[in-house]
This record gives sequence, C-alpha cells and structure tokens, in this order.
Amino acid sequence: MNIYLPDGSCIEAEEGASVLDVAEKIGRGLAKNAIAGEVNGRQVDLYYKLSDGDNLKIFTKNDREALEILRHSTAHLMAHAVKRLFPEAKVTIGPVVEDGFYYDFDIDNPFTPEDLNSIEKEMRKLADEKMDIRRKEMSKDEAVKLFNEMGENYKSEIISELDEDVVSLYEQGDFIDLCRGPHLDNTSKIKHFKLLSVAGAYWRGDENNKMLQRIYGTAWFKKSELDEYIQRLEEAKKRDHRKLGKELELFSSFDEIGSGLICWLPKGSKMRLTIEDFWRNEHIKNDYEILYTPHIGKSNLWKTSGHLDFYADNMYSPMDIEGQDYFIKPMNCPFHIMIYKTKTRSYRDLPLRWAELGTVYRYERSGVLHGLLRVRGFTQDDAHIICTSEQIEDEISEVLEFSLNIWKAFGFSSIKGYIATKPEKSVGDDAMWEKATSSLTKAIEKSGIDFEMDEGGGAFYGPKIDLKVKDAIGREWQMTTIQFDFNLPERFDMTYVDSDGREKRPFMVHRALLGSLERFFGVLTEHYAGAFPFWIAPAQVKILNISDDQLDYCKSIAKKLKKEGFRVDTDYRNEKIGYKIREAQLEKIPHMLIIGKDEVENNTVSVRLRSGENKNNLDFSEYIGVINELEKNKSTNLWR
Amino acid sequence: MNIYLPDGSCIEAEEGASVLDVAEKIGRGLAKNAIAGEVNGRQVDLYYKLSDGDNLKIFTKNDREALEILRHSTAHLMAHAVKRLFPEAKVTIGPVVEDGFYYDFDIDNPFTPEDLNSIEKEMRKLADEKMDIRRKEMSKDEAVKLFNEMGENYKSEIISELDEDVVSLYEQGDFIDLCRGPHLDNTSKIKHFKLLSVAGAYWRGDENNKMLQRIYGTAWFKKSELDEYIQRLEEAKKRDHRKLGKELELFSSFDEIGSGLICWLPKGSKMRLTIEDFWRNEHIKNDYEILYTPHIGKSNLWKTSGHLDFYADNMYSPMDIEGQDYFIKPMNCPFHIMIYKTKTRSYRDLPLRWAELGTVYRYERSGVLHGLLRVRGFTQDDAHIICTSEQIEDEISEVLEFSLNIWKAFGFSSIKGYIATKPEKSVGDDAMWEKATSSLTKAIEKSGIDFEMDEGGGAFYGPKIDLKVKDAIGREWQMTTIQFDFNLPERFDMTYVDSDGREKRPFMVHRALLGSLERFFGVLTEHYAGAFPFWIAPAQVKILNISDDQLDYCKSIAKKLKKEGFRVDTDYRNEKIGYKIREAQLEKIPHMLIIGKDEVENNTVSVRLRSGENKNNLDFSEYIGVINELEKNKSTNLWR
Repeated sequence: MNIYLPDGSCIEAEEGASVLDVAEKIGRGLAKNAIAGEVNGRQVDLYYKLSDGDNLKIFTKNDREALEILRHSTAHLMAHAVKRLFPEAKVTIGPVVEDGFYYDFDIDNPFTPEDLNSIEKEMRKLADEKMDIRRKEMSKDEAVKLFNEMGENYKSEIISELDEDVVSLYEQGDFIDLCRGPHLDNTSKIKHFKLLSVAGAYWRGDENNKMLQRIYGTAWFKKSELDEYIQRLEEAKKRDHRKLGKELELFSSFDEIGSGLICWLPKGSKMRLTIEDFWRNEHIKNDYEILYTPHIGKSNLWKTSGHLDFYADNMYSPMDIEGQDYFIKPMNCPFHIMIYKTKTRSYRDLPLRWAELGTVYRYERSGVLHGLLRVRGFTQDDAHIICTSEQIEDEISEVLEFSLNIWKAFGFSSIKGYIATKPEKSVGDDAMWEKATSSLTKAIEKSGIDFEMDEGGGAFYGPKIDLKVKDAIGREWQMTTIQFDFNLPERFDMTYVDSDGREKRPFMVHRALLGSLERFFGVLTEHYAGAFPFWIAPAQVKILNISDDQLDYCKSIAKKLKKEGFRVDTDYRNEKIGYKIREAQLEKIPHMLIIGKDEVENNTVSVRLRSGENKNNLDFSEYIGVINELEKNKSTNLWR
Repeated sequence: MNIYLPDGSCIEAEEGASVLDVAEKIGRGLAKNAIAGEVNGRQVDLYYKLSDGDNLKIFTKNDREALEILRHSTAHLMAHAVKRLFPEAKVTIGPVVEDGFYYDFDIDNPFTPEDLNSIEKEMRKLADEKMDIRRKEMSKDEAVKLFNEMGENYKSEIISELDEDVVSLYEQGDFIDLCRGPHLDNTSKIKHFKLLSVAGAYWRGDENNKMLQRIYGTAWFKKSELDEYIQRLEEAKKRDHRKLGKELELFSSFDEIGSGLICWLPKGSKMRLTIEDFWRNEHIKNDYEILYTPHIGKSNLWKTSGHLDFYADNMYSPMDIEGQDYFIKPMNCPFHIMIYKTKTRSYRDLPLRWAELGTVYRYERSGVLHGLLRVRGFTQDDAHIICTSEQIEDEISEVLEFSLNIWKAFGFSSIKGYIATKPEKSVGDDAMWEKATSSLTKAIEKSGIDFEMDEGGGAFYGPKIDLKVKDAIGREWQMTTIQFDFNLPERFDMTYVDSDGREKRPFMVHRALLGSLERFFGVLTEHYAGAFPFWIAPAQVKILNISDDQLDYCKSIAKKLKKEGFRVDTDYRNEKIGYKIREAQLEKIPHMLIIGKDEVENNTVSVRLRSGENKNNLDFSEYIGVINELEKNKSTNLWR
C-alpha cells in the first residue's frame, strides 16, 4: 500500500495498516507522540485503517488539533465519571472551548465544589483503568433507540435532528457518547487535567428551556503546561477587572438601573476623562474632526441603513413618538452619513475623517453579560473615513500607525493583525473588494505588524483588519477594527463630485481603535492589575503628613500640584503614617509624598513609590520636573 | 364721594364720577396719559363709575399693565378689521403675549402677506373712526345665543364652558367680543402697531382639532418704541441661530432622524468641544468630580424617583428588555443617587459635587420645537451637590460665583436672579424650606447679583434660584438653575453618618450653569450673531496666500499654529486674494493671515481682523504672543 505524507514523500505500508502503524514505521518517537491522523483532509483516530493511495498527516502533541482532541476526550472522561457517580444525571453536549472544555448535565441538584473533587478523582480512576476508546458507527434510528433505552433523551433529541443516516459513537468501558471524533485511543493518555467551575446554562441556550449544570475543565499534555495555565488563571482572577473595579471604586452597575449598563464612579470617571482627552487630542492632531450625534433615530433611518433587516436582534424595541417608531442607536454610522449628505461634497473635501465617542446600545442576553467586557451600553471610539479610491491605501496606513501609537501610549506593544477577506455572500463588485483588500494588506505589510489572513472571513459588506493586543499575562484581546463598508454608501446614495465633474461613490471605512471605552477599560485594568501608569491613575500623588505641624506645607504643595494639573489626594488624618501608607498602597496610588519635619524645613518631598522604593528629601521643584516628564512621556515606569 | 389713592391720600369726587373724572381732577397730564384704573384691586375701564370709599389706582402709559391693555385692544381692533375684510372668518381667541398679541381665526385660506397689509390698513381706518369701546354685561345664556346667531360658534363654545353666570363683552362699532377687559376707551388711542406674521395653530392647541390661522402683531404707545422694537426684531432675525447655524455649518437636524434631535456638524462640534473642555476644566478646578452614566434605566428606578408618577408626560415610551421596561433618561439624578448609594457615606465625605454632561431625552410636541432652543434631546451641564445642612450656604455661594465666572468667560455680564419659594403643595418640612430659602437669599445677596423674589413659585420639592442672562440685543434668557431637592433624598433613602455617629439625610442641590449645551449654543450664537470670540470660534485663524510662491511658508506657519493648539483653516486656492478674504469674512473667522512676498521675506504675518482692521507685517512670534493672550484671557476683543 502506498501512503502519501505531507512533504510529498511516499511510504509503503502493509495491507490493513493503521495510522499508528505508519507512525511507527516512520519512527518510535513519532508513534509515541501521535494523537490522531488526518486522512485525505478528514481527521481520524490512530487505529483508523488506511487504504492504498491515502494522503496522511499525523497530529502529535505539539499540534493545536491534538490539544483539542485531548480536551474532547477529557470531556467524555468527565461525563463517564459523572454517570458513575450520579447515574441520574443526563448527558447533553460537551464541546471544546478555548483552553479547555465543558459538559452540560441535566441534574436536579447543582454540583458542589466537593462534587467536582469527587468527579475529578473518579476521572483519574477511569484513566488508570486504561480503557480503549473505540469508534462505532450505526444508523441514526438505531442510535436514537439506543439512547432512548438508556434514558438519555437529550442525546436522542440531538441525533434525531442530525442530517445524516449513519452516526458515529465513541465507547470506553461502560460509557458511550455520540461524537464525530477523533479521540485519543486510550483513557490512560489523559493525565493532566483539572475541573475548574460549575455554572448554570439553559439547554440550547434558550431561557425557556431547562437549566442544566455546566462543568468547565481544562486538559494539557504536560504537567508544566497545566500548572502554568492554572497559575495564569489565578493571576487572571487577581486581575479580574470586576473585583478591582469594586476595590478601587472605578465603576459599578446596578440591578435598579439594569444589567450591562455601566455607571462610572468618580475615580473611574477621572480615568475615563484622561483617556478621552488623550484620544480626542490625538485625533485632532491626526486631522480628524469630532462629531456629536443623538442617541435615538427614526425607524426609517434604520430601514435605509439596513439595520432593521440584518441587525434587529441586537436592537432594543422602539419608542413611540407621535406615532413614529424611534430606536436607540446600536451604531453611529447613519448619523455620520446624514451629516455627509448635508451638502454636495467635492473630491477636494476628501478624505473626511469623522470621529465620535458615540454611546450605543445593543441587546445582549443577560446570561452573557460580563463586567465591562460584555455590556448593553458602551461608548465606541468610532470614526468614519470617507475618501476616494486613490486615498484608501494611505488612509489605512495612517490608521494603522495611529493605532500602534495609541496602543503604545497605553503600554501595549504586542499586536497582531488579522485580515478578513471576501466571504461567499457579499455586496460590492469584485474590483472594490480587491482594491480594498490589497490596500489593507499593503498597509499592514508597511506597518510591520505581524498578521494572518482570514480568507473568506470578512463581513458581507467589506474586508477588514482586526488587531489583537496581548496583555501582561499573555492573553490576546481583539480590540481595533478597520472595516470597509461597500453597503452603506450605496444604501444612502453617498456621492462626491470628482475632478472630472462626475458624481462618484466614495469609499467608506469604519474604524475603532480601542473598540469601546468600557471594554478597553476592563482590559486596561486587567493588564495593569489596577496599578495604572502615572498618567492614567485616578489619583497620581497622595500627600501624607506625619503630624499636624506639616499641614500648611502639605496644603501649599497640594495646591501647586493641582495647579500644574496633577490629580492629587491627601490624607491629613490623625493616623500613624504606616497606616496611611498601607491605605494608599491598597489604592495603588503611584506616588505617596511623605511629609515630615525635614521636608518642611528643606522645602522637599520624600516620595514613596507604589513599588515600595523611596526617594527621600527631593527638592520639590525637582519632583515636579520628574512627574511632568512621567506625564508627558506617558511612561509606564514609576520614576523617570 | 371719598376716593382713596395709592399714596394713602383721599380725593373728593362727585357722585357718579368715573376713573377718568378723578384723573382729570388730579391733573390734566394724568388724564391725558390715563389708560385704565384699578379699583379695590380689580382692573377697570376709564369710564368705570366709582363708589364712595373706593381705593383707586390709575394706570398710565408708563405702566406695564397699560401696555397689556393697549395690546389687548389692538387684538380686538385686528379682529374687527378681519371681520370687515373676511366676513366668513370666525373669531376664536386673541390674548396678549410678550411684546405683542395674537388672534386666531378659523378661515379656509391662510392669510397672505398682502392680506396682512390690508388688515393693517383697515385697522388704521377703524382707529381713525374714533369709535368708543364699551363694556357690556349679559347673562351667559344670552351671550351664547348672541354669538350663535352671529355664527361665531367658537366664542359660544368658550362662553358655554365659563364658570360664571354673567359675562362681559366689549363693543366697538359693529364689532363685539367676549372679554374680561379692561380696554382703552376709544379706538383712536391705538396708533403705533404692526402686524408681524401668520402661523397655523390648532384650536385649543390640540392637533386633532381644526387648524386655525394665527396673526401675530405688536403695539406700543410711542412711535419710537414701535420702531425700536421692529429694529430689534430685524436684528434678532439676522442673529437667528437656525439661519446662522446653517450658514456657518454649525449644526443640523434631519427629518430622517427626527425633529428636535441635533447633529453637530464638524464646525459646531469644534465649538462644543471647546465649550465642554472649558466647562470640565473649570469644574475640576472648582473641586467637582465628573461622572458618566448610561442613557437608559429600568422602570423601577423611575418609579422610585417618582418620575413615572409626575413626569411621565415628558418621558418617551419604554423599551422592553427581557420583559422589563427601560426608559431613556429625562434626567440624570437617579443615576448619581445610585452612585451615592454604592457605599456608606460619612460627614467627612461631604460635600460631594458631581457633574455630568448628561444627554437626556424629553418629549416636546413637534409644534413647539424650535432650533436649538427647544429640542427633544439635549446635554445638560448637570451637577448634584450633596452636603450637610451646615454646608449649604457656602455651597450655594460658590455655585453662584462659579456661575458668574462662567458667564463672564462667555461674554455675558448682565445677570439677574429669581428666587422661587415654597408653593402651596410641597414636600419637606418647613425648617428645611426656611433653611434652604434663606441660604439662597444670603448667597445671592453676597454675590451682588440683582434679584427678585418669586414667592410661592418654587417646585414642590424645594426652593431655587434661576439666573437670567441678557444678550447683546437686550433679550433675557433663563439659563442657570440652582434647585434644592427635598424629595429624591427621601425617596432613595440617602443618608450619611454624621460626626455624632447618627444617620442623617443630606441636602441635595441640582444645578445647571449653562442649562443645556444645545440651548446655550443657540443663545451664544445669537448673542454674537455668529461672530464668536477668538477662543470659541471654530476656526480661529485662516491663512490666505497671495500666490503659490508663499505655499511653503504658509504651510510652515500653519503647522506651528496647530502645534500651539490653535484651530487653523487654510485657503491656498488659485483665487484672487479679495475673493478669498470675502469668503473668510462670510465665515466670520476672527483672524485672516494674508501672506505675500514681504511676509515670507521678513518672517512676518499681515493680519486682517474680522472687523476689517489690518495689522500689517507683524513678527510671527509676536503674533503668536497676541493670540495666546486672546486665548488665555478668553477675550471678546479681536485684538489684545
């Protein structure tokens, strides 16, 4: 039998040889690390029997695909363990997610943390039993019957809705589950896993259905990887912006107002204003104009824009004003377009770059709301660039450069781009798509940003670049979007008069650098674990006196610092200085000025950095110089 | 007969003497200027017969009451003229309004400008006929019958709804109208009047009723007063912010989006941002904290606040989110209160001063919408001060001072205060009302602002100060409000822990300095007739080159000016310099820099002010100094 490998080479195998057999033929090491195969483009189990002429690829522990197979097998192992410990539990679905898996069970009593421990123990026992995991195929009807006999009505419901005549099941010991596969070939290969949490989840995500119990877990090939991941989780938990937001009094939401609607507390608002001011000034420097538009608009506007056709699920129900339906805006674009259309535009007026910190409202199910990361009302740092075909490449280049500078100022330097190209269904002619996609590609190449192509992954109305930024603990966040739109200029009949006197359709680009202020603020908080750079911190300097003798001096330097525009807190209470320092430390204030007798006598300050480092008896004017530099350079350092 | 005068003196009059008779007895001059009287507190006609012991006051042309009587009589004169020229027209109502009067007629064809001319001519004829105007009284039933016979069904409808048995009518020649009076005693006294405009108006203001034709007019005692008024009207027309807003491309609203919803165009947005930045910085300097809150909130919030009970007519219909009603906010207060309640507040935390540029949405009938002055969505420059009873006087004083400074920066110096005190129906105990009202009074006395008391004119939930500012053509605008609220702290159970450890209710003050950004922007535009001070103008400097030879120099100074933070426009087109100047002049740009050969050679600029004045060959660095001063001082001058 001839089997072809990815490098084009051919290997001879005996009739009836499996993937694993071929792996062994290639090398012992490969066989040891082999997890599954891909035959003629389809993933298969290790024991899959090959045929003459097959193209074979072998996945090892280093492949992303292998990790997903491991996690899928671990999900089955967990379901197996649950069925052993809780025979009354009914299995439903158990997919792989980022960094792990989950499985939803129908069971009356929610699982307790102790249950999770027992389940994990049982999983280890099952793994130690070294059971083979084997694929079975049967007709759909047989499978439905099988699961019905087992009392697993969720499974039989799923199978009965499948569009296939034959379905595949995987069996290990006394456990069998519907699955496309492939899987590991033996439970003993599942070694490094952990169950993480339990949450309620509706069957099929529909709140009219029964609430199931979802167990989340993770699995890795190496113990060190699992340990690292668990540590990362703990680090992430410490950095959780919801926890820090509460501790540092940055933002809040209220049942009384509604979930996913954020109120910015005074300290968070100070930071938001700092971010907004910076954002606005940078936009003005980069030749953008700022706009302000209303939050509601008539239904006709949203009909013209197409939102009521293709975006209605994300929009709130209308308000009636004198017999007309008004919708709260999910996007700012139609308003900017109406402004474009206030007069005849000439090629001389282009490019127009219009930016707005526009607060939009979009429906999200209450179940998916999450702190600042997923909300119902948020302020987009939105802009629309309206330009000619000749201008688009330069414009995209400038947006990319602008974006990099903004991210740098906030202390993010690891950025990756994803270009999404024309999908199957789309509007706009091929020439436009080509022109736009090539301008995106050229611009990103020029920028030096590492990028991947996501072929066919674009929206129906145009190609885009998404930028993901990596935070301090290595997590990637999709933030910046630069999105062409071939749809709205057409729907709103946007035109400009070109130099040849003819009316033409301009190009339109939506772009958001930070994405939304809310989500960005969440990511920023987690990135810095609440210890924000000097220029962003809500209070930059806190003045602590040793005794009342220094009150006047403290007040005079506080006044001077405020006059210079710094955000200053004071703590003049009659408390021990150690106590005051500990409090300021908990507030993560960058600089504490400890003022005692010496400082007053010498007109100095003693600075205690948030890091614990001390800079004693600094001339006050020198100190002002230092912090002016910190502010100006948007430094992420605490000193110079 | 003894008749008592306002100064307490008594005059003897013959039995049957009229008001006019007594006036003549007092003096010929008085009799000549007498318009009506007030007997025992009730206004009466000049020919009203007095009785022994009556208290009499005589209104002359100098009294506000007299002007209203004149205008009322002019309204009747107009109706008389309309009935002569258009017998098919039916009369309805004709009240006095500020600076004039109107009368609504039911007539099929709207009045044309030519009709207005004819009606005015006819009025002069009727005045020349020197008809006596005489009061008649009859029973309600008789009056209904009379007007029904005349075919005046609107009048009979009004009369039939009156709560009186006897009604008064006024008759002049062949015209009779229902009226409480008093009136002038003869049509010849109506000399200086003008009909101004026609508009459609629904009978009883209800759009389900028939559309009537409303004629507006004005009347004065002296020709000079009429002329001045007409000139003021013309001046106001030239300054109309709707006209200027379009010409200067400042803002717009769109049928497609909805009436009363304002889109700020790029130039208007530049100004708004300048205003907002100034506003925010001043608030921070004055120890306010800025907040950001959402635009929608659950119905429960608005039930707790009471808005759904007493403010529902001004609110839009709810949106349904997962079975709950959400309302777009008409006010920001409940959100600030929720933030207050995020933690236990101590007397040490007070006063809290929380400000937000909060965009609110309130229902207004489409008929009353007017440019930026009456809209459906607007951004309040809102703040809430939450403080102890001991702090309120200082707090109010500071708000007043703050307000004066803000108005001064925008070039308004004539300010008048109105203190509105406890109305009949109110919440909160008397001690609170007294304390709050006295703190308002003391603070305004201290501020030196001229003020009036509006006894009983307060809202049910607390006393307030309103400030009216006078614009460049003498019109007063009610802008600033400082309003105590005894209601919301109670409804939301707001508390703080006082130094004695006891929970207390704080005082709460709502205040808006500018009122709303939209309305303020309208007033600002009319105040300056679009020629804004240097620091506010959307483009502060426009650079005009004489020929292409100066292009590089122009670009280099443009760059330097932008770097200094100035808003710079350029016009490098190949057009005659005179043409370019005319265009910049129409845009009302404060400074044009005319750059020719000399300027490039000497590194200078020649500045043409919007006033037409020229400052030639100024050293460029000196010029930068001048405009930095203009900017810093928020000068309303064009130079130094």
